[in-house]
Amino acid sequence: MPRCQGHYSNSFLLYLFASFFICLKALGSSMSNGLNGHYQCAETELNSTEGELFLSEAFKVILEEAVHKATDVKEKVCEWKDPDQLRDVLDLELRDHGETHQQLLQRVRDVAKHSVKTNHPRFFNQLFAGVDYHALTGRLLTETLNTSQYTYEVAPAFVLMEDVVLRKLRSLVGWAEGDGIFCPGGSMSNMYAMNVARYWAFPQAKTQGLWSVPRLAVFTSQESHYSMKKSAAFLGIGTENVYHVKVDESGRMIPEDLEAKIVHAKSQGAVPFFVNATAGSTVQGAFDPLDRIADISESNGMWMHVDAAWGGSVLFSKKHKHLVAGIERANSMTWNPHKMLMAGLQCSVILMRDTTDLLMRCHCANATYLFQQDKFYDISLDTGDKSIQCGRKVDCLKLWLMWKAVGSQGLANRVDMAFANTRYFVEKLKKREGFQLVSEPQFVNVCFWYIPPSLRGKENSADYKDKLAKVAPIIKERMVKQGSMMVGYQPLDGRVNFFRMVILSPQLTQSDLDFCLDEIERLGRDL
Amino acid sequence: MPRCQGHYSNSFLLYLFASFFICLKALGSSMSNGLNGHYQCAETELNSTEGELFLSEAFKVILEEAVHKATDVKEKVCEWKDPDQLRDVLDLELRDHGETHQQLLQRVRDVAKHSVKTNHPRFFNQLFAGVDYHALTGRLLTETLNTSQYTYEVAPAFVLMEDVVLRKLRSLVGWAEGDGIFCPGGSMSNMYAMNVARYWAFPQAKTQGLWSVPRLAVFTSQESHYSMKKSAAFLGIGTENVYHVKVDESGRMIPEDLEAKIVHAKSQGAVPFFVNATAGSTVQGAFDPLDRIADISESNGMWMHVDAAWGGSVLFSKKHKHLVAGIERANSMTWNPHKMLMAGLQCSVILMRDTTDLLMRCHCANATYLFQQDKFYDISLDTGDKSIQCGRKVDCLKLWLMWKAVGSQGLANRVDMAFANTRYFVEKLKKREGFQLVSEPQFVNVCFWYIPPSLRGKENSADYKDKLAKVAPIIKERMVKQGSMMVGYQPLDGRVNFFRMVILSPQLTQSDLDFCLDEIERLGRDL
Repeated sequence: MPRCQGHYSNSFLLYLFASFFICLKALGSSMSNGLNGHYQCAETELNSTEGELFLSEAFKVILEEAVHKATDVKEKVCEWKDPDQLRDVLDLELRDHGETHQQLLQRVRDVAKHSVKTNHPRFFNQLFAGVDYHALTGRLLTETLNTSQYTYEVAPAFVLMEDVVLRKLRSLVGWAEGDGIFCPGGSMSNMYAMNVARYWAFPQAKTQGLWSVPRLAVFTSQESHYSMKKSAAFLGIGTENVYHVKVDESGRMIPEDLEAKIVHAKSQGAVPFFVNATAGSTVQGAFDPLDRIADISESNGMWMHVDAAWGGSVLFSKKHKHLVAGIERANSMTWNPHKMLMAGLQCSVILMRDTTDLLMRCHCANATYLFQQDKFYDISLDTGDKSIQCGRKVDCLKLWLMWKAVGSQGLANRVDMAFANTRYFVEKLKKREGFQLVSEPQFVNVCFWYIPPSLRGKENSADYKDKLAKVAPIIKERMVKQGSMMVGYQPLDGRVNFFRMVILSPQLTQSDLDFCLDEIERLGRDL
Repeated sequence: MPRCQGHYSNSFLLYLFASFFICLKALGSSMSNGLNGHYQCAETELNSTEGELFLSEAFKVILEEAVHKATDVKEKVCEWKDPDQLRDVLDLELRDHGETHQQLLQRVRDVAKHSVKTNHPRFFNQLFAGVDYHALTGRLLTETLNTSQYTYEVAPAFVLMEDVVLRKLRSLVGWAEGDGIFCPGGSMSNMYAMNVARYWAFPQAKTQGLWSVPRLAVFTSQESHYSMKKSAAFLGIGTENVYHVKVDESGRMIPEDLEAKIVHAKSQGAVPFFVNATAGSTVQGAFDPLDRIADISESNGMWMHVDAAWGGSVLFSKKHKHLVAGIERANSMTWNPHKMLMAGLQCSVILMRDTTDLLMRCHCANATYLFQQDKFYDISLDTGDKSIQCGRKVDCLKLWLMWKAVGSQGLANRVDMAFANTRYFVEKLKKREGFQLVSEPQFVNVCFWYIPPSLRGKENSADYKDKLAKVAPIIKERMVKQGSMMVGYQPLDGRVNFFRMVILSPQLTQSDLDFCLDEIERLGRDL
């Protein structure tokens, strides 16, 4: 670890000066508006001085409501309102005439107040949580610069930056060369993989459609993400051509069943072309055995994709990257730095081992108004035609700035800390009466039942499962209405509703984890 | 117009107080760090006080570099660097160890400096430009709240808000009922339309794939957006099953040729199921004759989609909405408020007339971990399964806040102003020697050649076209390298490279438009 130099005093002085400068500027603007000067007149365009002042004031509201309070453990995670109440509070209707500056600032405050605080240390509800202040800075800059990622012409810094970030991510996978692109979310990244695999196997599908190729078969585990089904439907392959491979109790794909399913599909006349392995499944956090799956993919001439949207970040950690051993043998992978790394929604990449420009060849349409061939710079920098989008948000800056801020080592620490916090939580949970693991966690998802006193020791009653199934939804309702914490639940493959605790934010403390167990007990002990 | 009240003084006092409050808080934090207190240590997580201070300082840099200077007509539109130079300046490489706070603020400044200023009054290069300060506020709040649009549980305000915004947009189309969703860009919205149309015509395609349905045919004009081809490729329909319908000189689809192409496709054994009409084509800004196309779609039992990504905003204007007369007869439309309305990238919707829940039925996959059926609230509010994405960015807030700020009337004014500025520019252009329109503009795209003195009067020379084709690229290179303005060019259907001027931002003045003509002349008169 490098030594950190004290430089607070300097930056603090700069900060003071800057504050006074803005105040003086605002004062000048106020005076020039005269005695009857109004700040903003509805239905007119703001001039730049008014606009900047509004932005500055709104930023303060955002900082207070959506950052400061939102990360304060003493504040609520959410402020539940029934939809009808919430509609009234927010006054959502859009009208002919505009509103004043003060009204708009109040709206910013109201929206923040009635939004779920995903930045809160007690938000465990999704595969994202917490706030990274550097990534957030990158996001604010991205929004302000408002450009599209398609050409070097309008996004010079971001074209180069995307390339560097993708290359660095690939190097963690073990790919010295390759390709990739940022996509709007993991489902889209998975769709890209399936489409590129199809093009690789049957390039004529791009031009002539699926009528020119045999029926295709996709393989993925029973506990893989639902985007596999969505992808198959959207790409015209059909959900019934997705073969769901059995998993073990922890949710890992059983390779022998993959082999059997491939044989089965072939016997039905389908052509197996795509295997999706999961690294970090959505519910149990399971890691499929990648090396075994790679063997099977290779021997069947199939494209192997790894949906590591959730689990990919273990690649940063020396201690935990064994979970994805073999990933370098895959053809492509999905990885969402907006999840465990906290880059902010949305930050998802599809990475590929291919060096033959498959991504571009598969997706290009050569629009002449955008990708002119007679530009004065190297047009290989116009990477937009690799995408199925036209305009494409800049998603690399937030990850890049965060990475610059904490280094690969800082990101590795983040991953290791999440595992350590999970271990802590699991040990505590195991010692508590009334808490029961669904399976031993491999990752930072902890799946467990809370069994209220009335159900303990009654595992053999006929209605035990029905009663247990109702516990998590009621506790969830109570926690949301009180705003004390948020954690998800679901049934899975014959196992009735259980909680899925997701432990990722380095901002949560052991006391937040203790609180979680206490709170579930408090909310559910009467059930 | 409502009267605006003067309330500047109050807000200014509040602002002063807030500034001092933040300074005091920072001072406290500094002191608590002790004499050796450092502001940010690389590779460690920021605590909330440090994080908020960093955010505040970074915001000031963003405001100065990406708003204040970026909108200043005296500053450059872009700061051209060759890729190798730019890589050096930005120091893009990602390393093991993190950086100090001051270094990171400098990086924010550097990225802003070397990005294209799409907010600048002389940026005419894409179908977006300018800045709306209210929309930008909505975007900053969206990023800070960092949630996903899929469930009422984690996005209560935004689920309701999306519904209101979509309903209001539909009402402008003339649809009292219907459906819709925000998508990551217009290309994706167009893909949604094609997929829903396919499901509507052949629902078995979702489950059994395209092998269960006859070969499908898509119809779109020669000057429609390239996303139609990308959609057909991605959805497994194939680019060769896209029939390109002829256009008139202004770029409008010729209905008689649509009929002929449908007959032709049928004769080849294909099933016509989808017509895409364009409202505001990308290059010429052409509006296809929607009523005629609706007649043809209806009589052939086809789904009619309107790609109004660019032109849809004319619906706000009483004066100009005749351009999309008949749009209410379509089955679906794409509309990008991030273009003419300036909502910020990305803000795109697919709107549908359907009231049978087609969008949900077509895309749903019923993930049990997300869309639990035993939630305590009305689960019809969990609209995420309408999407092909899983996590989905909140794109409604920026549009909603902007709309609240200026009202429908303000947005109408914005559209009318763009048309008026375009008229001004066209009249000026027509009076200038050496400027020649490609076609009479219907919208706010102005396509024209600049003919340098050396080529004037030589229209009949054998090499005239070859020489003219080289003019726009050279002028473009010069303007980018000098950073004086940005405007696009392209060839089109036998017409050699011409400029496409896009006039949309209400922040540009007539002097910016005069400048554009002067500048092209200045940069090109020696050619």
